Amino acid sequence: MKFQMKEVHNCGKHYDELGCPEAMENFDELLDPIGKFCEEELAPLNDVGDTDGCVWINEHEVKTPPGFKAVYDKYVEMQWQGLSFPPEFGGMGLPLSMAILKAEMMATANWTFTMYPGLSKGAINTILSHGSEHLQTTYLPKLIDGTWTGTMCLTEPQCGSDLAQVQTKAVPTADGSYKITGTKIFISCGEHDMVDNIVHCVLARLPDAPEGTRGISLFLVPKRTLNADGSNGDFNGVNIGRIENKMGCHGSSTCEINFEEAQGWLIGEANRGLNHMFTFINTSRVGTAIQGVGAAELSFQNALTYAQERMSMRALSGTKHPEKVADPLIVHPDIRRMLLTQKAFAEGGRCMVYHCALLADKMQKARMEGDAKLEKELDDHLGFLTPILKGFLTEVGLESANLGIQIWGGHGYIRQNAMEQIVRDARIATVWEGTTGIQSLDLLGRKVLLGKIKPLNKFTSELYAYCGEIIKSSDHRMALVPYVMPLLARTLEWQMLTYRIGMTARFQDKEAVGAASVDYLMYSGYVTMGYWWLRMAEAAHKGLKSGDPAKADFYKAKIATADFFFQRIMPRTKTHSATMTSPTKTLMNDDVSKMMQSA
Amino acid sequence: MKFQMKEVHNCGKHYDELGCPEAMENFDELLDPIGKFCEEELAPLNDVGDTDGCVWINEHEVKTPPGFKAVYDKYVEMQWQGLSFPPEFGGMGLPLSMAILKAEMMATANWTFTMYPGLSKGAINTILSHGSEHLQTTYLPKLIDGTWTGTMCLTEPQCGSDLAQVQTKAVPTADGSYKITGTKIFISCGEHDMVDNIVHCVLARLPDAPEGTRGISLFLVPKRTLNADGSNGDFNGVNIGRIENKMGCHGSSTCEINFEEAQGWLIGEANRGLNHMFTFINTSRVGTAIQGVGAAELSFQNALTYAQERMSMRALSGTKHPEKVADPLIVHPDIRRMLLTQKAFAEGGRCMVYHCALLADKMQKARMEGDAKLEKELDDHLGFLTPILKGFLTEVGLESANLGIQIWGGHGYIRQNAMEQIVRDARIATVWEGTTGIQSLDLLGRKVLLGKIKPLNKFTSELYAYCGEIIKSSDHRMALVPYVMPLLARTLEWQMLTYRIGMTARFQDKEAVGAASVDYLMYSGYVTMGYWWLRMAEAAHKGLKSGDPAKADFYKAKIATADFFFQRIMPRTKTHSATMTSPTKTLMNDDVSKMMQSA
Repeated sequence: MKFQMKEVHNCGKHYDELGCPEAMENFDELLDPIGKFCEEELAPLNDVGDTDGCVWINEHEVKTPPGFKAVYDKYVEMQWQGLSFPPEFGGMGLPLSMAILKAEMMATANWTFTMYPGLSKGAINTILSHGSEHLQTTYLPKLIDGTWTGTMCLTEPQCGSDLAQVQTKAVPTADGSYKITGTKIFISCGEHDMVDNIVHCVLARLPDAPEGTRGISLFLVPKRTLNADGSNGDFNGVNIGRIENKMGCHGSSTCEINFEEAQGWLIGEANRGLNHMFTFINTSRVGTAIQGVGAAELSFQNALTYAQERMSMRALSGTKHPEKVADPLIVHPDIRRMLLTQKAFAEGGRCMVYHCALLADKMQKARMEGDAKLEKELDDHLGFLTPILKGFLTEVGLESANLGIQIWGGHGYIRQNAMEQIVRDARIATVWEGTTGIQSLDLLGRKVLLGKIKPLNKFTSELYAYCGEIIKSSDHRMALVPYVMPLLARTLEWQMLTYRIGMTARFQDKEAVGAASVDYLMYSGYVTMGYWWLRMAEAAHKGLKSGDPAKADFYKAKIATADFFFQRIMPRTKTHSATMTSPTKTLMNDDVSKMMQSA
Repeated sequence: MKFQMKEVHNCGKHYDELGCPEAMENFDELLDPIGKFCEEELAPLNDVGDTDGCVWINEHEVKTPPGFKAVYDKYVEMQWQGLSFPPEFGGMGLPLSMAILKAEMMATANWTFTMYPGLSKGAINTILSHGSEHLQTTYLPKLIDGTWTGTMCLTEPQCGSDLAQVQTKAVPTADGSYKITGTKIFISCGEHDMVDNIVHCVLARLPDAPEGTRGISLFLVPKRTLNADGSNGDFNGVNIGRIENKMGCHGSSTCEINFEEAQGWLIGEANRGLNHMFTFINTSRVGTAIQGVGAAELSFQNALTYAQERMSMRALSGTKHPEKVADPLIVHPDIRRMLLTQKAFAEGGRCMVYHCALLADKMQKARMEGDAKLEKELDDHLGFLTPILKGFLTEVGLESANLGIQIWGGHGYIRQNAMEQIVRDARIATVWEGTTGIQSLDLLGRKVLLGKIKPLNKFTSELYAYCGEIIKSSDHRMALVPYVMPLLARTLEWQMLTYRIGMTARFQDKEAVGAASVDYLMYSGYVTMGYWWLRMAEAAHKGLKSGDPAKADFYKAKIATADFFFQRIMPRTKTHSATMTSPTKTLMNDDVSKMMQSA
């Protein structure tokens, strides 16, 4: 397991702009030990996480895989959970982007372990943004130092994406708290033995609440209520009915939680729970995008090693290693096609995620400085990019993981070789935190079309400006134009497709949005990733010309991968642009409906 | 579980042509009980096959999942294993295509069970084609009545696809038999408790054999040697070292077999083992294509039911079921896009497989009638279609299975809901019996280019002639032209791409074949499937006009799915045609090589 933190050393300028130069100064000092921890502590537990998994003991106890607790204790001891949280609650107060660097390394090394602190961060953000001062001072210090963890409880047996159907009830009591009753399912890390209290963020309805999503409130419900001195008290009617037996992610417990008159406290305003929860959901969506990047990176690293070592057949262009019984797999063009696909997705995805982390840093700065206009602008931009990150990067992450099996051949299907685990673990990434379909509707319907295409135009303006600069004044113009031209053409097409679908949906056929959405999301993903490969190529050309000569191979590899991306990945947009504009009647006509009822 | 055997009732004409009208006459009588057996006996065991899996007991015993043996006994009792094998060895002597209909139903109901008789069929075909009279009379009757099963033993720890590296040794003995010594791995159904003897077809090297693939011979090695009266004798140095712990296919044992001076008999000629084995390999490749079709069909059936029952959100075009808490999933265009993708692949794939089965019937007839020219012609045609079937149908089968999870959302990730099992079981299909990469090289390099493009031109001639007939004289010309025109354009492009890659490979760059191959295979698959969707659409239009009015919905569904295929699936060729002709240097240049060594 290797970690490529050197790639992001140009965060320096960013941290200067943020007024946080110490982040850059301490960059290696902070991140190197985390990388070491990932390599030496987390990665070796990835297998036992899958093999032993979690075990339900009773309604208050779930056992995590052997070794998880000891490593979690070390994580807590190092105070890494608090990296980017406010010092007033015990955090280190570093930029959000530092936490993302940490999260990607951890996600690659051991995804299921990473979920426990990862979900907890979502709970922390929710309480930070919407919790009362009392809730903040009571719960945040122990969540931020990792003594406790948190969860989000949305899904119920009858509904997942469609939260309008939430039925869990919250009844006010005389002391200002609420009695929460109802069943939540698929609660990741909902119970485990690494901490002694768990803070659940629970969606529920007040007695007089309106129907649908406007009648949902958000409650903080701890596993154990607290004594007056803040220490853990009694169990709180939060009972684990079972844990799920899943395709993968065995290392993270997936709980059915039965809330039985559990004591809870309102977070934020009554009936605005869904809005408040979106703080949590957005954190989780970027986290899930990282799951895609991690799957691509891990699978690439393991497949590359195998392709270098496994001897099979001779190169069609002539024997490369006559002294050996056969040539290594890596001589075969199709093996390279698969490896480069993984590499292009892992590194392109990393850029996309880090860019969002930097935007989030800027947004936080704007908020702290009271610049509401800039904050809103950045929030809108992040809102546009988040479904692309979540939807696209999980799809290509899963594809990369599957290519890892393919490169390993039959040995990739054997559990002990760990390639198939990456697929099983990553398979949920395109589903949870909103399926690819849900992300696509969020992107095309909610963000782009309801936003009058402004968020798209903001992004494309940035892209056009950047491309214009390259054409006008880059020293590497000649080398970069082969990327710039197709990227500009696809970006222009992206805007035209958007207008076309928008017009069709508005004047002819409301189904046009749903029928186009997933193709639209994937198209958006390829263009966005292409923008980052262009930027990486430019940085690499600059580095080759005037950077550290010792890094020449690193830069050349970037350029070769950019070449691959534009030649062999970008043409996927051709299919998506054709299918997203095909008539909706192919999907929605009466014969299809009848067939779907009777087949 | 439903089986769509009604679709293939037009086999009647075919069976008349074969001189086997009784096949058609007894069609329902034969296949209905098999369908019932699949629904009532096999399908219910699919879950236990996955959950309990196989258990290694000792070097001669592997336990299959509970219930497998009882059902296998019933299968034997019904004499279904012998359906299409020669009556002289106890078979029913029916056309091969009847056995394929049976195989598809069984594969959909319970893939891992189906593997036991399926691999046995490969062994039977090998012995039928290449075994001596003695081997045939000794082993075939009990293999054909199902008393014993057979396997193929190719892979060794150091090599799978690259059989030139096979090291297993065969030493002649005085009695004309051989002592076989070596380790084979990944032997499917290599040991199990459903029969009391297992007949292994083993690749091994004679002492004086030349190196590489020209020095490999094929041996028949039974688990137990036979007594003079043909009954089972002693164990034969065939020892099971372990069974593999796999991602899926838990119901079929995957064995490491250590041959320790096991007694074996040469099948066919010395040093021609690989050629002989290809009889087996081709059987298995079509079998694996069926695995893809079965995965698509099973996943479609289960996803359709869920999409009709699960209530989630309201249709974007307006509420469809105001009386319910939400609309069913099926109202959403993207859900339909996924369902129709599964349906198009399952039904299009079924046609492709059945067509090959009919060609195989004709080839067998030509062989029996001594028409060597026709036999060769049909063999070449099948040789061209087989890698397309195996490579393409397993890829789209796996895609369909993944869509099944996607439609089920989070519930698709839970083991008891059985959707994720389809993915885990189908994941190996693109790998075993030659990976998609290997199929692609077989198709483009071996069959098409080494065959001087003749096999492709033969297929396209058939396609052009058929399209010409439609344009010239079909009553449904107007309805079909929207399919005919893009199909003709893609077919012409297919030929042009072939010439272009062939020329590049010949005169400029030998890597062009490997670099293009997988894109070429997928392109070929979409065009081939498009041809079948056109044929199905024509048959459906005819049926609507003059067929049974009770089947009108069936015909309309076919036309709607053909529409979908041409609108939303066929455009995938756009990407493949762009990427397959992109320069090989993106994959093969020095920077890529260096990067791949040092990353």
